[in-house]
This record gives sequence, C-alpha cells and structure tokens, in this order.
Amino acid sequence: MATPQAHTFTLGLVQMRCEADLNANLERTLSAIHRAARNGAEIICLQELFRSPYFCQRYDPTLFDWAEPIPGPTTERLAQAARETRAVIAASLFERRAPGVYHNTAVVFDADGSLCGLYRKMHIPDDPLYFEKYYFTPGDTGFRTFATRLGRVGVLVCWDQWFPEAARLAALQGAEVLLYPTAIGWHPQEKEEHGAAQRQAWEVMQRSHAIANGVFVAAVNRIGHEGPAEGGLQFWGSSFVCDPFGVVLGQASEDREEVLVVPCDRRRLEEVRRHWPFLRDRRIDAYGDLTRRWLS
Amino acid sequence: MATPQAHTFTLGLVQMRCEADLNANLERTLSAIHRAARNGAEIICLQELFRSPYFCQRYDPTLFDWAEPIPGPTTERLAQAARETRAVIAASLFERRAPGVYHNTAVVFDADGSLCGLYRKMHIPDDPLYFEKYYFTPGDTGFRTFATRLGRVGVLVCWDQWFPEAARLAALQGAEVLLYPTAIGWHPQEKEEHGAAQRQAWEVMQRSHAIANGVFVAAVNRIGHEGPAEGGLQFWGSSFVCDPFGVVLGQASEDREEVLVVPCDRRRLEEVRRHWPFLRDRRIDAYGDLTRRWLS
Repeated sequence: MATPQAHTFTLGLVQMRCEADLNANLERTLSAIHRAARNGAEIICLQELFRSPYFCQRYDPTLFDWAEPIPGPTTERLAQAARETRAVIAASLFERRAPGVYHNTAVVFDADGSLCGLYRKMHIPDDPLYFEKYYFTPGDTGFRTFATRLGRVGVLVCWDQWFPEAARLAALQGAEVLLYPTAIGWHPQEKEEHGAAQRQAWEVMQRSHAIANGVFVAAVNRIGHEGPAEGGLQFWGSSFVCDPFGVVLGQASEDREEVLVVPCDRRRLEEVRRHWPFLRDRRIDAYGDLTRRWLS
Repeated sequence: MATPQAHTFTLGLVQMRCEADLNANLERTLSAIHRAARNGAEIICLQELFRSPYFCQRYDPTLFDWAEPIPGPTTERLAQAARETRAVIAASLFERRAPGVYHNTAVVFDADGSLCGLYRKMHIPDDPLYFEKYYFTPGDTGFRTFATRLGRVGVLVCWDQWFPEAARLAALQGAEVLLYPTAIGWHPQEKEEHGAAQRQAWEVMQRSHAIANGVFVAAVNRIGHEGPAEGGLQFWGSSFVCDPFGVVLGQASEDREEVLVVPCDRRRLEEVRRHWPFLRDRRIDAYGDLTRRWLS
C-alpha cells in the first residue's frame, strides 16, 4: 500500500447514472469502486448522493425516508469496500442526524476501512429543481480535511464549488486534493442557449480553486436525465481532475458511465507553489470583512 | 454622457508596448485614450505602470526616481484626458508617497476629470524578474471601489488577480466591474514548456472572479519583450473582458498594440446573480479563519 510519502497518489472518480432502485445504485457503485481499485485508484470519490436519483427536484416529505444514519447500512458497505480495496473512499450521503435534522454529508473512509470523519455540506443551494434548502440543514462542521494513509484530502460538496472561501479554508488545512462530489446538470430547455457557458463556468471555478491554492481538484458528477421527460435535469457528467496549476489531467464524457483513474504527482504541488507563491502573499490583515454579507 | 442608470457601459482597454522613453509612453497612451473614447469607450483602463518599462526586473535604487507624487504631472494629464473624453480613466502609477515609501498605485478619474480616489496594490509579488517587494510598499488602502458617473468600478492590480479574497471584497462593495491593470509575461526560456498553461491559469483565475462574484472583469496587460535579449520578459498581452458568468466578450492579441472596446450590459449582472445566487449563500459564520496564515 502506498504511504503519504509516496510521490504519487492515484485518484478514482466514479461517474454513474442513478436508477430509481437505491440498492441497485449501491451495488453498481460498489462494483465500480472495485473496478477503480483494480485500475490503480487509491483515493476513490463518488458522485453526490450516489445512492439515489437527485430527489431535490421536488418537495416531497416522504423522501426523508431515504435519509440514513451515519454510521449505518451504507457506510458499513463502504467501509468494507475500503478495506477490501485498500483505497480511501469519499462518499456523499443523505444523512439522518435526528428527526427533522437531515444533512447532505460526505464521509471519508481510510484505506483500512475506518471512518476518518464526515463533512456536512455548508453551502446549500435553492433554485428551480435544486430545492436543497428544503431537505438539507446547513452543515455545522465547518470546512474539513482528513489525514488518510494516502494523503490529506479535503471534501466539499457540489454548491460549495462556487465559493472560493471553502476551497481556501480546506487548502489552508493542508489538503493535497479537494474532492467535489457533485450533481449538476442542464435544464434541457436551457441547454442549447446556456449549456456550454454553464458547464464552462463550472470547470473554470473549480480549476481556479486548484490554481489559487496550489492543490489538485477532482469533481465527480453524475450523468443521465432525471425527472419528467419534458423537463427535469440532464446531468452533464464531465467529471475531471486538474493539477495544482489548473491543468486538466483527465476528464470523463458528458453522457457515459465511467471510472476515471488519474495518477497525481504530489511533487507537482510543491513545484507549483514555489513558482506561484500565492500562500506567501495573502493579506490576512485585510480580509476581515469576508465575514460580512455586504459592504456599503 | 451616459449615467449609472444606462443599461450599458463600454469598457476600453489600452494594450501597449512600453519604450525606454517615459514621456513617449505617456503621449502614446493619451492618444490611445482619445482613440478608445472615439470608439465608444466610457471606462478606460490602462495597463500596469504604463509610463515605463517594467523596471522590477532588476534591483536599481536609481529607478525610484521614476516614482512621482499623486497628484502630480502624470495625474494632471490623465485628469485632462478624462475631462476631454468624458470617460472614466483607471491608471496605474509608480507613486512616491514619501521618501522611502513608494507604492504601485491605481488612480481612478471620473468622467469630469476629478480624482475619485486611489488604490495601493495590496498583494506584492517577488519572484525572478518580478522583484516588486524591493520597489513597492504593500498597500494600506484595503480593497476599494469607486462610484463614478458611469458605474461603480473596483480596481485591483496584477498580482491581486490571483487572490479570490481581493475580488470578493471589491464585489461586496458593489463593484459592477473589476479592472486589473497588469504586467505579466513569459520567461522566454520557459514559454515553450509552460507558456500555454501560464496564460490559461491567468485567464481562468480572473474569469473565476467574474463568476464567483457576478461582476464584469477586465484585465489589461502590456505586450513586447523587455530586458536582455537572451532573457527578460515577454509580456503576453491577451487583455480581455469577461461577463459576470465568465464568458469572454473580447480579447486582444498577445503581440499587437490594441485598443479593445467592449460594451457591457449591466442587466446581465442582475440576470446572472438571480440565476446563480452565490452571494445569497455565503457562509459568513464560517469564514473567520480566512484571516489566518495557515491552519494546522
């Protein structure tokens, strides 16, 4: 097994379509984890809410039944997969913390199957067909990283990817890679006019986190159309890994299930930060107002 | 003259080569300002330290002679140009504030020639051939915006463009556009291997500020090779404007003097922020550690 001292860690991104059957999604994902590990993946990241369709397209109180405790049946299976593959696994779950307190939560398992910890999504969207404020209590974990046997990983979730503050706070904790489990897609009727710009904005933002912080970034997004045929969401896949200078090292398609395996040379992180020493020059004396809503 | 209520403001970016003769640079820049205004530019931004070669390639105490007070002879000419063209002008100067206190300073003139104010570069680089910490005292203005007759502009300078914190703090003050006077180029011997990635990282970072904050962004960079023939810096031009979703609206070449004139529809800013409401969802309760150097 690799150690944090190894020059390379290999990321595995599991990009899938989700079915109505939650157990089928779990089993197919576990298969994909094993496939990723066989292909060399050491740190495997799943897409957001991989066990289910993206249910936040509608308001339905019965869907809280899909939430589950952590630890619970799903984390037990994931822990087992981590043990079996000797890979770190980052997964995104609909967490039932207490009646009425549900979260969009990422869990990280170390390569021995132990739970490193969890992160509860801090930035919660609420937009047409992304009604997340109905389902998810805003996270109270703050931004976190996890020291695994294979390196220090930061995990952020989907909407977090639009906030430079989140990436910065994870990077300042020493993250070598930021993982973004994601569920983002097009409104089909908007795709022709706005689709290209939307996906590009999504890529630009995440590449900018890599550059600003000198870290690897991996975004893992689902594929497939979910919801009514004439509406719904068409998830755009396009999962990718970029290096600490924002160079895209590998990217999946927009419409096929894929296991993307990308080796990352951690010496690149040191090299980039030496030549582009942004962390040296931050004006921490002048950033206090970042905790304010608006300045005027 | 347009008013802040107009739907559109038109940016003018003056991308030039700098000569050894400071006065020639000033005269040619003033000509370009008039040309930009004739072509419809209402808010005109000059490149970083437009009056001189990029002198920070070497350590030379006599070069402090190039610094000048504000107000001073150059700002007088710029104010006159603003009055004559009825354009807002943002310019970057080597400021002599006091003996031993020199700054890399941006000044903004309103369309009537009055000085709106100044911004002293907060993030100071110091890298091979960019020895700015020798010349420039770090700014003490904080991040600023200026309410001009044509809209509220934020001005940041070059190295600032790598820091999401700077863009955020200007945007939270209501900036509609962030202007980045810039002097960045390739080390010629690195260009073949790293040149494309470097320029792309520079574009990605600035487009990300537009997206994260829902503001227009304009970067104005010089062209030309300066310094010893076998070394020196080859400035990459590529000045550009992008909209509040990071879509590039216009971009100059990497090697020609150009006046880039780009109309910006401020309704786009409202539209983008409604559909991508990042400012609504910032977790200001959890950003306090952004004022720390490192977290561990």
